[in-house]
Amino acid sequence: MVASNSSSSASSSSSTRQIINDKRWARKHTEADIRHLIEGLQNGAIPDYQISAWLMAACINGLDIDETTWLTQALVDSGTVLDLESQSGAFVDKHSTGGVGDKATLILVPLLASCGVKIAKLSGRALGFTGGTIDKLEAIPGFNVALSQEAMFAQLKTIGCAISGQTRTLAPADGRLYALRDVTGTVESIPLIAASVMSKKIAAGAATIVLDIKVGRGAFMKTPDAARQLASTCRAIGERLGKTIATVISNMDSPLGLAIGNSVEVAEAIEVLQGEGPADVRALCIALGAIALVESGQYETLSLAETALMASLDSGKALKTFKALIDAQGGDSEVLQDASLLPQPDRIKMLPAPEAGYVNGIDPLKIAEAVNLLGAGRKTRESPIDLGVGVVLRYKIGEYIEAGDALLEVYATDDFEKNAQAMALLLEAYKIKPEKPEGHVPLIHELCMNRPGHLADLISLKAIEATDTISSVL
Amino acid sequence: MVASNSSSSASSSSSTRQIINDKRWARKHTEADIRHLIEGLQNGAIPDYQISAWLMAACINGLDIDETTWLTQALVDSGTVLDLESQSGAFVDKHSTGGVGDKATLILVPLLASCGVKIAKLSGRALGFTGGTIDKLEAIPGFNVALSQEAMFAQLKTIGCAISGQTRTLAPADGRLYALRDVTGTVESIPLIAASVMSKKIAAGAATIVLDIKVGRGAFMKTPDAARQLASTCRAIGERLGKTIATVISNMDSPLGLAIGNSVEVAEAIEVLQGEGPADVRALCIALGAIALVESGQYETLSLAETALMASLDSGKALKTFKALIDAQGGDSEVLQDASLLPQPDRIKMLPAPEAGYVNGIDPLKIAEAVNLLGAGRKTRESPIDLGVGVVLRYKIGEYIEAGDALLEVYATDDFEKNAQAMALLLEAYKIKPEKPEGHVPLIHELCMNRPGHLADLISLKAIEATDTISSVL
Repeated sequence: MVASNSSSSASSSSSTRQIINDKRWARKHTEADIRHLIEGLQNGAIPDYQISAWLMAACINGLDIDETTWLTQALVDSGTVLDLESQSGAFVDKHSTGGVGDKATLILVPLLASCGVKIAKLSGRALGFTGGTIDKLEAIPGFNVALSQEAMFAQLKTIGCAISGQTRTLAPADGRLYALRDVTGTVESIPLIAASVMSKKIAAGAATIVLDIKVGRGAFMKTPDAARQLASTCRAIGERLGKTIATVISNMDSPLGLAIGNSVEVAEAIEVLQGEGPADVRALCIALGAIALVESGQYETLSLAETALMASLDSGKALKTFKALIDAQGGDSEVLQDASLLPQPDRIKMLPAPEAGYVNGIDPLKIAEAVNLLGAGRKTRESPIDLGVGVVLRYKIGEYIEAGDALLEVYATDDFEKNAQAMALLLEAYKIKPEKPEGHVPLIHELCMNRPGHLADLISLKAIEATDTISSVL
Repeated sequence: MVASNSSSSASSSSSTRQIINDKRWARKHTEADIRHLIEGLQNGAIPDYQISAWLMAACINGLDIDETTWLTQALVDSGTVLDLESQSGAFVDKHSTGGVGDKATLILVPLLASCGVKIAKLSGRALGFTGGTIDKLEAIPGFNVALSQEAMFAQLKTIGCAISGQTRTLAPADGRLYALRDVTGTVESIPLIAASVMSKKIAAGAATIVLDIKVGRGAFMKTPDAARQLASTCRAIGERLGKTIATVISNMDSPLGLAIGNSVEVAEAIEVLQGEGPADVRALCIALGAIALVESGQYETLSLAETALMASLDSGKALKTFKALIDAQGGDSEVLQDASLLPQPDRIKMLPAPEAGYVNGIDPLKIAEAVNLLGAGRKTRESPIDLGVGVVLRYKIGEYIEAGDALLEVYATDDFEKNAQAMALLLEAYKIKPEKPEGHVPLIHELCMNRPGHLADLISLKAIEATDTISSVL
């Protein structure tokens, strides 16, 4: 015998049941429906099993842009908003959907501050295959990743930038929702991802936000179409909630730069801030930075902004701001001169190429898995990680290697068994063939801005296309 | 930053996540997948929020007949199976998906036993808009609805029938699953409903099962198409699991019989067992009974079986078996002579017709809601109910009533306010028009049997079509 939904039982939760049932039948929610769910999630009035049923229905049957915007706003309203409007200056923010070897935030924060905008960056830790900016910063001895709002505001006044771990007061319901999505097969949903990303960005207070949406094997968005949908959803939310959102869709079919790990990525970021470093990392940072400077109204054109950014990198101005940032947050800025002050591995091993040929592919997921095996990966949110381990690539796509030459350096511990597994994965990651790879995968696929600006305007991208993919500088 | 499903975190639950994710993308499960979920549900290894996410994915993306059969078997295997094979005799079982005024079980159990098959009926309580056989039986003073297996087997030997509340040892995981479906918008799913119904029936041990699938406003299946799908899914499960399943799709656009409530339905069942009672109740019981007798091999044809069943009703043989059943289970069988021994209401009121005309419709949901308001409805599984309240219709569809004549009798308590609300609902339930209703809604829409037998063969149905819908006997 089957009880009906029109049953008089459990009347206290009947509106929750009705809301779940609406999405099960692909009916549109009201703003009040979504607010009811998120408030119930936040205050515990709605049990997890009801939220997860709704999440699955939303995943499969979708949320339209109204519903997605209401969800974003409800997540924002579950906590406080960083009051950057009370602070002087033009604030920008930047977010990446996560990739392998993506150290752009470490570079962009001081670089942008050195060019006249302010940035109060709230970052996360590594989970899954993607690294986390906060973990990377902890490789700098003494660096304080837990700033109070007062300390952050004071620092923004003096040096124009700050990087801190995400506080629990910004969009806290998003954290709860994500924890549930993670274990209920409901991560892969454009509207849910967009609401999650945008709620944190909106709570972080900046008026101008650049979103770097990664696409490819090492990204969460596997196809350009999915990346494009996420980008347009985020822009639409931003438009409705009064934010200026620019989106970039960038390639993540192979790792960004040469270094993957924590210490090694900090070292590579320092190289870029010294005017050197891998061409792709430099070009991406200049492109994202220029977009932020134009969108926030600091520069008229992308090329003017790029010129300023390149000058800041090449003159040491950006590096000086990074030094000020490290000093302000209690870190040892000697690392800028001496990378050996960063946590070091037990040993550095070379991985020889098993055959001669051209590198046709480097699987970023296999690289990430290997680096996690070496000790940089977290098993749970609380697990400690080894900051010294990682890999530094010596050859990237399109380059020729002789058999026996070192494909990459492995920064490893003394755990023989794990190292052997990691080495095997690293070998699998490389696709070496007698012929050169055909075609060319662009660093940035697409760009959408609110002020005038197009992909073709970016001189930093033209420069990288004209030269070899990578200059080995480490 | 978004963590991937390929993350190494929470490896202990990764197979659960993978299974949920498979159904989120509408991929087919293996038998092991489904067993993993149901065992995890049963032993608590899988939290409710994961089960409910899977339920929603299964609701929306469906389960095919393999998956539905595996789910049924896993639910059966979560508990014990009533070992009727160890008992002598041909066992049949009957299940209704629930309707308003459906007292067929009370009649069919002694009726079938009086015609040579055995029936060990495990029934449920009321929840939502449908009544429950166990509640109805408790209207008989002293009737014990909680038989031990030993007592039940002993009783089956002596009188060939028994009715008891569902034990917690039969398909216990189905109870857990249903409790979760009830609050997560995942009740409406043909495969989940079929697996739930069939798991309980298979655990109850009979080789031959007749399913009465109600369709219409007062049923869980609102459309003939949904009812047909449920019927064919249940038959397919039965075929794969070695059971003989016959299905009937019967009308529930208006209440069955005249009485809706507990005492009043017992009284009406007694009337039918005395060879009287409303024609629709009698015809349905004879039809369902004949199908059971043919499917279990007791009779060659439906008409032969019907003749035997009618003879049993008209001769008092079935009533005698009901007396034996009541006596065996400790009840006061004096109620068979004196219905006033059943729980009585505080008062009986008449509801006058507001206008003259033909009854064109009686909304069973409104009737059920009114009866629940009068005190027969449960708010939660543990709520007490008032066995004496209910309604007895005086006019059914197609009949003419004068303004001011009593449409129905209301068996009520002294709660003035609730009675007023109930009366308003009852008035709303009746659609009275100057013209006679057009067309004819059949009592049974469809019949599917394994042995030869068709709807057109049922003489009990022909009889009811030829006469008035109802004979007012109460």
